[in-house]
Amino acid sequence: MLAAPAGNRRSMTSAPTEATPAPRSRPEPDDLAAVDAWWRAANYLSVGQIYLMANPLLREPLRPEHIKPRLLGHWGTTPGLNFVWAHVNRVISRDRQAALMITGPGHGGPGVVAAAWLEGSYTERWTHVSRDAEGMAELFRQFSFPGGIPSHAAAQTPGSINEGGELGYSLAHAYGAAFDNPDLLVTCVIGDGEAETGALAGSWQSNTFAHPVHDGTVLPILHLNGYKIANSTVLSRIRAEDLQALLEGHGHLPYLVEGGFDGEDPAAVHRRMAATLDEITAEIRRIRERAAEQHRAGRDVERPRWPVLVLRTPKGWTGPTEVDGRQVEGTWRAHQVPLPGVRDDDDHRAQLERWLRSYRPEELFDDDGRPREHLSAHVPSGDLRMSATPHSNGGELLRDLRLPTIAEHAVDVAAPGAVSVSATGALGGWLAEVVRRNPETFRIMGPDETVSNKLQAVFDVTDRQFLGRLEAGDEDVARHGRVLEVLNEQLCQGWLEGYLLSGRHGLFNCYEAFVHIVDSMFNQHAKWLEESRGIPWRRPVAALNYLLTSHVWRQDHNGFSHQDPGFLDHVLNKQPEIVRAYLPPDANTLLATMEHCLASRDLINVVVAGKNEQQQWLGPDEARAHCVRGIGLWDWACTDAGSEPDVVLGCAGDVPTIEALAAVDLLRTHLPGLKVRLVNVVDLMRLQDERAHPHGLSDRDFDGLFTTDKPVIFAYHGYPWMIHRLTYRRTNHPNIHVRGYVEEGTTTTPFDMVMLNDLDRFHLVIDVIDRVPGLNVAHAALRQHMVDERLRCRDHTRRTGADAPDIVDWTWPDT
Amino acid sequence: MLAAPAGNRRSMTSAPTEATPAPRSRPEPDDLAAVDAWWRAANYLSVGQIYLMANPLLREPLRPEHIKPRLLGHWGTTPGLNFVWAHVNRVISRDRQAALMITGPGHGGPGVVAAAWLEGSYTERWTHVSRDAEGMAELFRQFSFPGGIPSHAAAQTPGSINEGGELGYSLAHAYGAAFDNPDLLVTCVIGDGEAETGALAGSWQSNTFAHPVHDGTVLPILHLNGYKIANSTVLSRIRAEDLQALLEGHGHLPYLVEGGFDGEDPAAVHRRMAATLDEITAEIRRIRERAAEQHRAGRDVERPRWPVLVLRTPKGWTGPTEVDGRQVEGTWRAHQVPLPGVRDDDDHRAQLERWLRSYRPEELFDDDGRPREHLSAHVPSGDLRMSATPHSNGGELLRDLRLPTIAEHAVDVAAPGAVSVSATGALGGWLAEVVRRNPETFRIMGPDETVSNKLQAVFDVTDRQFLGRLEAGDEDVARHGRVLEVLNEQLCQGWLEGYLLSGRHGLFNCYEAFVHIVDSMFNQHAKWLEESRGIPWRRPVAALNYLLTSHVWRQDHNGFSHQDPGFLDHVLNKQPEIVRAYLPPDANTLLATMEHCLASRDLINVVVAGKNEQQQWLGPDEARAHCVRGIGLWDWACTDAGSEPDVVLGCAGDVPTIEALAAVDLLRTHLPGLKVRLVNVVDLMRLQDERAHPHGLSDRDFDGLFTTDKPVIFAYHGYPWMIHRLTYRRTNHPNIHVRGYVEEGTTTTPFDMVMLNDLDRFHLVIDVIDRVPGLNVAHAALRQHMVDERLRCRDHTRRTGADAPDIVDWTWPDT
Repeated sequence: MLAAPAGNRRSMTSAPTEATPAPRSRPEPDDLAAVDAWWRAANYLSVGQIYLMANPLLREPLRPEHIKPRLLGHWGTTPGLNFVWAHVNRVISRDRQAALMITGPGHGGPGVVAAAWLEGSYTERWTHVSRDAEGMAELFRQFSFPGGIPSHAAAQTPGSINEGGELGYSLAHAYGAAFDNPDLLVTCVIGDGEAETGALAGSWQSNTFAHPVHDGTVLPILHLNGYKIANSTVLSRIRAEDLQALLEGHGHLPYLVEGGFDGEDPAAVHRRMAATLDEITAEIRRIRERAAEQHRAGRDVERPRWPVLVLRTPKGWTGPTEVDGRQVEGTWRAHQVPLPGVRDDDDHRAQLERWLRSYRPEELFDDDGRPREHLSAHVPSGDLRMSATPHSNGGELLRDLRLPTIAEHAVDVAAPGAVSVSATGALGGWLAEVVRRNPETFRIMGPDETVSNKLQAVFDVTDRQFLGRLEAGDEDVARHGRVLEVLNEQLCQGWLEGYLLSGRHGLFNCYEAFVHIVDSMFNQHAKWLEESRGIPWRRPVAALNYLLTSHVWRQDHNGFSHQDPGFLDHVLNKQPEIVRAYLPPDANTLLATMEHCLASRDLINVVVAGKNEQQQWLGPDEARAHCVRGIGLWDWACTDAGSEPDVVLGCAGDVPTIEALAAVDLLRTHLPGLKVRLVNVVDLMRLQDERAHPHGLSDRDFDGLFTTDKPVIFAYHGYPWMIHRLTYRRTNHPNIHVRGYVEEGTTTTPFDMVMLNDLDRFHLVIDVIDRVPGLNVAHAALRQHMVDERLRCRDHTRRTGADAPDIVDWTWPDT
Repeated sequence: MLAAPAGNRRSMTSAPTEATPAPRSRPEPDDLAAVDAWWRAANYLSVGQIYLMANPLLREPLRPEHIKPRLLGHWGTTPGLNFVWAHVNRVISRDRQAALMITGPGHGGPGVVAAAWLEGSYTERWTHVSRDAEGMAELFRQFSFPGGIPSHAAAQTPGSINEGGELGYSLAHAYGAAFDNPDLLVTCVIGDGEAETGALAGSWQSNTFAHPVHDGTVLPILHLNGYKIANSTVLSRIRAEDLQALLEGHGHLPYLVEGGFDGEDPAAVHRRMAATLDEITAEIRRIRERAAEQHRAGRDVERPRWPVLVLRTPKGWTGPTEVDGRQVEGTWRAHQVPLPGVRDDDDHRAQLERWLRSYRPEELFDDDGRPREHLSAHVPSGDLRMSATPHSNGGELLRDLRLPTIAEHAVDVAAPGAVSVSATGALGGWLAEVVRRNPETFRIMGPDETVSNKLQAVFDVTDRQFLGRLEAGDEDVARHGRVLEVLNEQLCQGWLEGYLLSGRHGLFNCYEAFVHIVDSMFNQHAKWLEESRGIPWRRPVAALNYLLTSHVWRQDHNGFSHQDPGFLDHVLNKQPEIVRAYLPPDANTLLATMEHCLASRDLINVVVAGKNEQQQWLGPDEARAHCVRGIGLWDWACTDAGSEPDVVLGCAGDVPTIEALAAVDLLRTHLPGLKVRLVNVVDLMRLQDERAHPHGLSDRDFDGLFTTDKPVIFAYHGYPWMIHRLTYRRTNHPNIHVRGYVEEGTTTTPFDMVMLNDLDRFHLVIDVIDRVPGLNVAHAALRQHMVDERLRCRDHTRRTGADAPDIVDWTWPDT
């Protein structure tokens, strides 16, 4: 174990700045009696939630019918969470410190719900759960009950921005909330099970990105209760000196509070915890004051050695020591429901009653079931309550971004195809202006790919923020800046989630293939938003915006490992109200799309756009009009002159659009009489039925575009079955033939890539010949010519590395 | 920086067992001259791969036409990898030590390819790349060239089991390969960019799971070259004492080699590296001997303090110091192609030529372009070559599992529905026998869920392996065992991949929702297998088997956060040759499925099965026959008596099968004249077209089951569009109506869950009434009765928490 020689604290180095701080104030015993009472109340309410459906105040002896029929819930981690909450309350109410609590351990639901109810905010948010005996009964009943609340913190939980279901994201969320909130203390309880996850293990480096003046303070509390569901945890079983070295290695100054073992009187543990928190808060104050001074003096501010608290208490502390002769408190057996048989087994029920009464509820709640006055001695009020802080309901703090118009960043396109630029390069210029106008509420996250993704224009107005050592020769790196780059997609995602949920805005730019690293985090954020939409007091937050670039079609040297367009498939499994997918075909449509996304709320927007230079199709006005529709004919590329076409070429995505246009070009050359319609899709959701998605087209509109009986050849950016999935209910679905990525990839040119997957211009022409009645027979020679051309081009591109030729000779419809 | 006071080594503690070891042998200067020559050769070949398409030996001055038209590749990390390879070769050839090298840094392709070519194994594997001037030219040409090889280690690379494309998995792969390979040294180079990923950060704890007698040794080499694509790395910019503490905190004994900066003579760095590796190998030997002794004596063996090497060298070491007046060596500018203009710019080309000649190729290659004899002084031969070790081509070592028959573990099912058991519980018994029979080649990985997933029978024959502190009261935990549990899905996946690719077998059991955490790792493994299939010398490896349980329909207390069946959607985007998805409806079908999976090769099998007790449908023989077909009628549940049915009820998944059977039960009660056919699908791929998947049904067989024109009501485990995606080409597709999970979830009973998603028995009956012509009118009262029943049941389950009633009264067809 971490020993705790002096004041429960070990400074591992003897540098003068890190000498043992003098405790600010020794908490008085009375002080701690109130803390203990609050803790007992929270514990009582937690046990009640797991077991009781009636008789909440134990006004009568426990009978079977007071017990829920199915006992579901998690006790193990809860008393530790309650302990932390009680003590942090003492400190923040004393200091009037704005604070947010992130509870990472799995299934700590009973605790955080109890805290919110004790603080009154639960009742403010959920008025049917009143702050009296009746409300307490409802509080108990709803927990882990059909139609009720889950056994972990969730969107329904006042004060929470972190779901305790899937583990590992607490510390990333904590830093996300702390960025640009200099006055905020974010206390983050990390479970020792959670600490084993890759996401959490990678999150410790966040402190190398947080600025001690511009950003808030994160206080990680590593809670070692020793066990997961059925097994011990790693960090509770490594050598004490290793744990200490590990936390120091992460750049922290570790403090230790250990107690509650072998029946130790909680009063002693309260004293150690209070004294240690006093030391920690004093140390945080010193760090911030020193940093502020350095900053004012124009001196460099490096990463401070922030405190971290290690709290080691028994799993299921204060619960049953033994059940049926087997140790429960302090083991994994306390993880869920320590006494499983209370409804039927009189002994178990008696043991439960003793357990509940051990908290002395009569001292805690008055005759009406209201928390007694003395519990609140150290409970902050109003917005200072951690269960009520607006930072946990970010929509309350959210202000619209000041968005620049896209006009001056748009690309001048004299005629379709007349100019070539990088779409993300153009976006970079506009994003720079977004950054400039929103210096405290907008951040760009990415895994060291801002430049690679051609967004480097943002470095004209800001830098990458980094608190590690700076060196001569570093470029676009500074102590403070709007770009956060770390080679860790989970951290980018987690920071951004925390930043958004606490009321700010941002963008995550990522290689398309590797965004799958955050699939599961995306799921959880989507579920959070889905739940939030049904919660009246959750105010809308800014959308989570993904810019996926370096996409599947452009991996010249990286090859197969970098080719995967499946994130869109993953995203579209979530509720349609929450997800949007955009495939802008060029720079101006990308600008118009992103302008829309950055202003949207309670959504997840996925925007896929290439970074390479390519021909441009739409001028700024056309682009905006096209993006507003989300789908539309491109008149200038159609040869059906407004009449019913012989064939429709659909396209979605920048590279498929190029190939579809090139196919039209070939068709109008070789089959000038053929009436071809080109439909481009920016907003993928437009393809869906209006009953299935709020952006869905009516059948009439869809049929108007794609006809009810003509062949449709659809060139799509990703896996082709997506288009079938979106359109299978449409009248003309049997005639829709989709080309897309069919998992054929290698290290090769972009042009070879489309040929490998049969998405190339020649293959699209062949598809047209094969599917428009009569063409196959009448134009067999043309078909063979396309086959030959294809082989010739494939050979050429493989031999020389050359890309596809540009398409020339388009004109606007009115010229 | 980590200082390197005595012998380049700092021991952070003064425990006697960790005193500075005496160097085993001071490498002689001659010794190191050969190491240096090999290194220069590897560097020369690396630069050649990036730039040259002709004139490989510089027999004439470099001209533009010798240079590739597009320069794609990554120089930055390569000289460091080559340096490590050269030095490890010296040690392993001296000690005749079997070794495997995992190269984690991104895009180190040129280096590992060069090493394999120098060692001869490249030519053995790819005979067209001969070990002479002509082969060298081909080696250069193919690199990052259309149809060639990617810029990172890949399946094509002899000696590799780790793709350097997506980063973060090296250390997990290294431990996976080391498990149960006591004689193997796995050297794992970790890039400092890669080290920022969550996957890598979480992998350090692997040493707490590796046994120093039964498992091999992993030597992590953290290579700090300081930069990623465009930015510095975190670990190269934290304080030296923090880095040291961090590695000690991870349980390691850190050694440091630093050099090559400011033009330092490489000879000095060679000397430090060789001396340090000698110390490290001696320390590893001591650790293993001590552990073996303790083990023989029956004493406890705790986690040793294994060495870790920190290697700090400049990014792009030995490359151009400056280009166009900007520093390149030692900065991120060396990441890819340091001299971009060599084809057109004479100065750049001259600089490239000087760079190439600085390696003195004439000393390295003979007139025919073959590596000169003296290069091989320290290169091991045969299987000891790291580029040729069979551990990197695991199929060469793979032995079939000794699989027990499933008969004695099967559930006796007197009649369908007559008995209830847990499917995974039954599987656990069989897995225990698999473990018993294969004590060294089969492992079960999971995030602390072996018991939760009801596989606890395996603990009758083995334990969880854990090298942290054991405590009295621990159950089913030991120093050595076949189960590896860590709350880190990435680590479970990474270990298993390493274990399989080095020739062993295993199973990863996971909660269904949280397996998305490894979506991206799954992608990379699938791509590896897809590539491997086309590589003649890659021998088939055992399948990666997922058992997904605690699935979407059974999350009574966990609620919405634990509900996501989308992994199947993700998996089926990969090439059909590689992926299989099974949804066994009960225990015996689960056993038959898993028996099949554990014997399969070069596949990824996803098996989804619930853990809760439920009614059983098939006896062992019926189950096996059904699984062999993968899809089939259940005669005993059909009321069409072999004739053309009025409606087909399809089902896939255990819960949908229950609801479909219950719907049949309701239909035969209420509509006894209706001819209903029930088709159950175990092997999801059977639904697909035989042209789209090797398991696909012919249209004739599909039509035989599902008819060409009758309504099909399909109850599916996951997102309903999957069934459409699989069947959209079928004749009867317009009549297929799918019920599945539509992202409606909460904390509630399983029965309420199916009702929330309209997958319940009543809704299926309503669907039948609505879709079979005439029923709607004739049986409006029955329809209303179903609607009422549904509401009644929903109310009942929500009020009481009760689950759906059992279905009774089935009989086998022949009784």
